[in-house]
Amino acid sequence: MKIGFIGTGTMGQPMLANLLKKGHAVVAYDVVQAALEGAVKRGAARAGSAAEAARVSELVITMLPSSPHVEAAYLGAAGILEGIARGRLCVDMSTIDPAASRRVAEAARNRGVRFIDAPVSGGVPRAEDGTLAIMVGGDARDVEEARPVLACLGANIIHVGPVGSGEVAKICNNLIAGVAAVAVSEAFRIAEGFGVDPKILTDVVSKSSGNTWVMEHMHPVPGLVGKAPANRDYAPGFMTDLMAKDLGLAVSAARDLRVPVFVAPAAQQVLRLASSHGLGRKDFSVVYEFLKPSSSQAPV
Amino acid sequence: MKIGFIGTGTMGQPMLANLLKKGHAVVAYDVVQAALEGAVKRGAARAGSAAEAARVSELVITMLPSSPHVEAAYLGAAGILEGIARGRLCVDMSTIDPAASRRVAEAARNRGVRFIDAPVSGGVPRAEDGTLAIMVGGDARDVEEARPVLACLGANIIHVGPVGSGEVAKICNNLIAGVAAVAVSEAFRIAEGFGVDPKILTDVVSKSSGNTWVMEHMHPVPGLVGKAPANRDYAPGFMTDLMAKDLGLAVSAARDLRVPVFVAPAAQQVLRLASSHGLGRKDFSVVYEFLKPSSSQAPV
Amino acid sequence: MKIGFIGTGTMGQPMLANLLKKGHAVVAYDVVQAALEGAVKRGAARAGSAAEAARVSELVITMLPSSPHVEAAYLGAAGILEGIARGRLCVDMSTIDPAASRRVAEAARNRGVRFIDAPVSGGVPRAEDGTLAIMVGGDARDVEEARPVLACLGANIIHVGPVGSGEVAKICNNLIAGVAAVAVSEAFRIAEGFGVDPKILTDVVSKSSGNTWVMEHMHPVPGLVGKAPANRDYAPGFMTDLMAKDLGLAVSAARDLRVPVFVAPAAQQVLRLASSHGLGRKDFSVVYEFLKPSSSQAPV
Amino acid sequence: MKIGFIGTGTMGQPMLANLLKKGHAVVAYDVVQAALEGAVKRGAARAGSAAEAARVSELVITMLPSSPHVEAAYLGAAGILEGIARGRLCVDMSTIDPAASRRVAEAARNRGVRFIDAPVSGGVPRAEDGTLAIMVGGDARDVEEARPVLACLGANIIHVGPVGSGEVAKICNNLIAGVAAVAVSEAFRIAEGFGVDPKILTDVVSKSSGNTWVMEHMHPVPGLVGKAPANRDYAPGFMTDLMAKDLGLAVSAARDLRVPVFVAPAAQQVLRLASSHGLGRKDFSVVYEFLKPSSSQAPV
Repeated sequence: MKIGFIGTGTMGQPMLANLLKKGHAVVAYDVVQAALEGAVKRGAARAGSAAEAARVSELVITMLPSSPHVEAAYLGAAGILEGIARGRLCVDMSTIDPAASRRVAEAARNRGVRFIDAPVSGGVPRAEDGTLAIMVGGDARDVEEARPVLACLGANIIHVGPVGSGEVAKICNNLIAGVAAVAVSEAFRIAEGFGVDPKILTDVVSKSSGNTWVMEHMHPVPGLVGKAPANRDYAPGFMTDLMAKDLGLAVSAARDLRVPVFVAPAAQQVLRLASSHGLGRKDFSVVYEFLKPSSSQAPV
Repeated sequence: MKIGFIGTGTMGQPMLANLLKKGHAVVAYDVVQAALEGAVKRGAARAGSAAEAARVSELVITMLPSSPHVEAAYLGAAGILEGIARGRLCVDMSTIDPAASRRVAEAARNRGVRFIDAPVSGGVPRAEDGTLAIMVGGDARDVEEARPVLACLGANIIHVGPVGSGEVAKICNNLIAGVAAVAVSEAFRIAEGFGVDPKILTDVVSKSSGNTWVMEHMHPVPGLVGKAPANRDYAPGFMTDLMAKDLGLAVSAARDLRVPVFVAPAAQQVLRLASSHGLGRKDFSVVYEFLKPSSSQAPV
Repeated sequence: MKIGFIGTGTMGQPMLANLLKKGHAVVAYDVVQAALEGAVKRGAARAGSAAEAARVSELVITMLPSSPHVEAAYLGAAGILEGIARGRLCVDMSTIDPAASRRVAEAARNRGVRFIDAPVSGGVPRAEDGTLAIMVGGDARDVEEARPVLACLGANIIHVGPVGSGEVAKICNNLIAGVAAVAVSEAFRIAEGFGVDPKILTDVVSKSSGNTWVMEHMHPVPGLVGKAPANRDYAPGFMTDLMAKDLGLAVSAARDLRVPVFVAPAAQQVLRLASSHGLGRKDFSVVYEFLKPSSSQAPV
Repeated sequence: MKIGFIGTGTMGQPMLANLLKKGHAVVAYDVVQAALEGAVKRGAARAGSAAEAARVSELVITMLPSSPHVEAAYLGAAGILEGIARGRLCVDMSTIDPAASRRVAEAARNRGVRFIDAPVSGGVPRAEDGTLAIMVGGDARDVEEARPVLACLGANIIHVGPVGSGEVAKICNNLIAGVAAVAVSEAFRIAEGFGVDPKILTDVVSKSSGNTWVMEHMHPVPGLVGKAPANRDYAPGFMTDLMAKDLGLAVSAARDLRVPVFVAPAAQQVLRLASSHGLGRKDFSVVYEFLKPSSSQAPV
């Protein structure tokens, strides 16, 4: 199939490489020239605009950094909706505000174009392996139509619900994971202050009500879980900046919905602050490092 | 063995009943007369003070509501350390500040008395079944000496480290569990606002980085997990007030250690506020109910 | 002067009434029919769209509830920028995201139209008296041109800086005021718990480092400051929902700017939660009521 | 008068120097030898214990770093209550938990000894000038008896209420001041991100609902308020570590009282974290520096 691929950054390039490998043709576009060059080197054809990429393709995939980028790519001048033929299907794989997904979907529908959201998790390594987890929101028929293409990119494809639901599932999952990482870090800092062996505590917690995926797979304390980023100086994994972004999407969605939230903004802001202090490109489990005790001698 | 049992409240009574059932003799004391009567009805002998209960026993167990109660029971007038013979072993099964455990342990040591901390989890149902989880801090020999008695009370007995470590393990585990419950509640409130099916979201999260014991076993949204308190109008389980207490112990310990913590106090305070608004005796997963969206029509 | 007035809700109506009183002609428009009727009753002419109101006027004023409303009124179909003649001046008096102000200003500039932001504070009473405080962002010449009209609406008109700066000043001021109200409430709840006379504490704080405008003028504890909303069952004043909105704008702006913030989201969310529990239309100082102590007997 | 002075640290030394200057005799004690030497150099007589200092004096003053120090000095071995004659008056000028003040007062009363709490504000400069603000809790007669001595130390002596009330007033005031400093810092960081002139914003806020003593006197942004610590690289003033301590006392008191608090712990923890990152001995307005925006290029 001929696929228009808009957004050929760090994640987009290995994804389109997998599409090519599975025999699809890819017409790529990115507003950043260097990113577009990367896609061409991997074997994609070059389009002069999102509109052009959409015009010449049977299916459009977008993989962009944020809601405004996605809205511009679809709705802006020389955007996808200018070029695309009626009846075509667009798959947005960016992680963005679910409300933005719905706005774009509605604008697409008004032009007779179909749109589904399909954000991914797993990062660059699983993008390269083609084993991303993909959470999809949209009409069941559209999701089924996209499934063979998505299967080139990911191993676990879940249809969550109507348009926007993929995004909702992703930011809700990441809300919990991000908060849990901060909670685990706080708990192990306290245990450390009392001189409790973190290995034994890990053992206790793993069999108790405090058990979390985050502790089992990305333990923030170095030396406890084999493949955890903590064991390679917090090389990501999933960057602090990206987790701060996803928590920000969740908190912002909560605001729009008038849902009061407390632990999500606390985690968001502490990751944001860690980024201010130079840890934005480390794995988000580095928050453990950031939450070190004060060595002050002043009274408490 | 003849066991002095101080603190015969809601948890203490089923615990001492199990000791009696396993053939131990129990001499009970409680400052609250009604609580002491309950113990006597279950077959315990009555002591006139903590000191007296300690004097006539081979082993002392305490099960009290808070740090000041424990310090008073051991260090106060007519307290355990006044009555107990040198060389005896005391087991404090209360959930209290680990620093308080250490203070009491030191005072005991100065009198030639041994002390271990052994807080429990599982609540009244597992206290009745004798299947509590017990986290123990103290010298290995003391822990082994106490183990046969603890085995009458619990199914899973873990030696965590030196005195105070049992408490540390408990409050660190509960820190994570309490924060996770708030995070899960926030996530599902957001999903609900977008109309996403909570059953499908549960499925997605359970296979992703956001998975937590709390969601799997105590899902705050009614109708999703069979035995969860949410399905019986949030009957505990583990009360909001007790989780607020345990988070408070963790936050307070962090303060003493100069460890900065963010999500733990946020969770603590929202549970405390839920208690102010009448939910203190419900299961702590009721925080989902408390975090309902505003129905306001005002702009956001 | 003939003034197009778009947004004739609770605040807009007394404002346009003052314009009429000072001899201006007003052509009004609102998407809500009832709101538009109210404006007509006060003496405004009726326009069929924002575009029409803009087409027939020498100056356009907008007074709308949120960023999306403002963007729609200017940029949408039959919006202001469709109808307005090149060279005209628009004054947006809504409280919105400063970034939205800048987006609208840029779109206006591209059409040869001038735009300034001029959010107000003081609420309905001061809108009626024509004594609003007005914080203005825009080119100095534009601000001077608008000043005579603004002077019909407000007593204190401050030019803060370039476009968006009026909004920035407003949300930054309200961030501090909103947080201070929560801080004052927390402090007086603690004092109350210790039985300290709030009148004496007010006296102490007013002469110390904790003094704030909020305590002096809107003391959250009833009976201490004559005109405070607390003395009339928290009738606003400035509604909880509106303060939650302004704190939300500040927190959201911080997110866009990558500024880490901690007390602002804490205050925002507790006001949002107070709204969930029925206090959204009370004065925001009602947060004192909401933060009542738990009457629980459980240990802490 | 002959005054026993226990706690001759950084604050205690200039205070006892003022007592000496006004003609009182001072018998000093401190557990830290170097601190005691300092007092002797300034002209105090040396006692071998708190008990001895108390035994030989007509009035006892304590000025210690934290609640456990105060409890040890009064209640511990060779402590004040061991040495002091019945009927004497003790004045604790430390900043501690009001509940600890009350416990010590009760223990004193049981020995026939009178106790008042009288924490100060103003720091070392005003301790040296003898112009501290002193908030006093205790029986009116005791306060009047102490007043002439307190007048050697401070300029503004306020009787707040019964024992503990001085502490309550101090921590409640500092709760508001500490939170306000963080709020002002957040607001000015946001304004800065939008390029708004902080001088003009200061002007706007100072005339609006966001005005606070903290902004007027200790503006966190350098270059705006003459004597603010921000203008001398945040040399204190009042150290971050001490403000974190006072916020911790307030939050801990709230916990004991079951009062839910949100902005106080948020401010406490961000100051604690600033201390972890090396800012503990700077003025607490340095939190503005700490809350710098992330320079990350990642999407938000």
